Amino acid sequence: MADSTDMQCQPAGIRNCGPPEAGRSAEGAGFEPARELTPPTRFPGVRTRPDYAIPPRGHSVEAVNDLDFSTAMGRALAEAQSALEHGDVPVGAVLLDASGTTVAADHNRREEHDDPTAHAEMLVISRRARDLGDWRLTGHTLVVTLEPCPMCAGAAVWARLDRIVYGAPDPKAGGVWSLYNIPQDRRLNHRCEVVAGVREEECSSLLRDFFEGRRRGDADR
Amino acid sequence: MADSTDMQCQPAGIRNCGPPEAGRSAEGAGFEPARELTPPTRFPGVRTRPDYAIPPRGHSVEAVNDLDFSTAMGRALAEAQSALEHGDVPVGAVLLDASGTTVAADHNRREEHDDPTAHAEMLVISRRARDLGDWRLTGHTLVVTLEPCPMCAGAAVWARLDRIVYGAPDPKAGGVWSLYNIPQDRRLNHRCEVVAGVREEECSSLLRDFFEGRRRGDADR
Repeated sequence: MADSTDMQCQPAGIRNCGPPEAGRSAEGAGFEPARELTPPTRFPGVRTRPDYAIPPRGHSVEAVNDLDFSTAMGRALAEAQSALEHGDVPVGAVLLDASGTTVAADHNRREEHDDPTAHAEMLVISRRARDLGDWRLTGHTLVVTLEPCPMCAGAAVWARLDRIVYGAPDPKAGGVWSLYNIPQDRRLNHRCEVVAGVREEECSSLLRDFFEGRRRGDADR
Repeated sequence: MADSTDMQCQPAGIRNCGPPEAGRSAEGAGFEPARELTPPTRFPGVRTRPDYAIPPRGHSVEAVNDLDFSTAMGRALAEAQSALEHGDVPVGAVLLDASGTTVAADHNRREEHDDPTAHAEMLVISRRARDLGDWRLTGHTLVVTLEPCPMCAGAAVWARLDRIVYGAPDPKAGGVWSLYNIPQDRRLNHRCEVVAGVREEECSSLLRDFFEGRRRGDADR
């Protein structure tokens, strides 16, 4: 396991599934260049990019690579499709246990349940924890079609998930890379490894089609 | 309503209930001095302190002052006491509607429900939205004994709450001032006014006693 001093310089040990474009400016996106930190290495995790993700305690890089996130993302995409049936933004999530088995799957139900907290990620985390009778979901991996928001990223940390795998970035509200990096904030009491960009194009196009369709629908009215 | 250009310099128009100590260094707490921002005024809300809180749209400063947060905090404190009965960290929350009437009250049930998302704030927001049949809780005020974490702060923004009122700061995991200022991040699509430090000493001592008792209990074993 990498210690905090070499985390920033460590090569991307895990599979790089196409993180958000590296050329994008860090300034103005909620990140500050490391030279401005005081002291410079106090919270390195806050600025850690997904492509420098931290292997969770007790898991080797090889074990991470053995998990097939693409198949799990396919299941999450199918869940996202189901959200369309009740007019919800198409976001789907699955939760894998330490062996990679899917133990929970759900999709965004905000409109269906009239509940602002009913994001796909919240529903799978909550259901699995209640099923297990333990709020500590150590060893679990969250696979979700859209980058989790601050609420869901916070829930992943509180649930002590090992890993968050997402498809499309969310430049407007992402809490894992785009606006904040909550799961790798070393000031919190747990960190999750992050893998970004798994089947990104499929995840993005599902959302793009939904919002374009809604705009067309609004124009017709 | 103040516009974005004068928000930073505006005097603390709302009642100052004793925000976190002003002398505390901004650096190393997730905030950066404004001079380092690029461009300097792009996201002023991210660095807004609770004592510079933004009056929500359609609500005058006077209307805010007319609400009696101290009474509501008393109710939240009583809820926090109830959490002790099932061994949960004593945090309580109430939700007030636009007229100041309590419409939901609950406390932390993480241990009781074996659910990492069952924080007091999540429970009241979720219940009220489902009761109303609308996830938009515009006009509502969340009153909570402890500064909300990033998960709960995110939920408050998604629920479009007008205001968050809290008692004790949470320097280890606060998402409203201590580590992040999510409810006043102007990159998100909604902002909440924030009032900090209402009955702070009572809220803090309840938590302090709980953790001291737990440490003593551990030592006895």
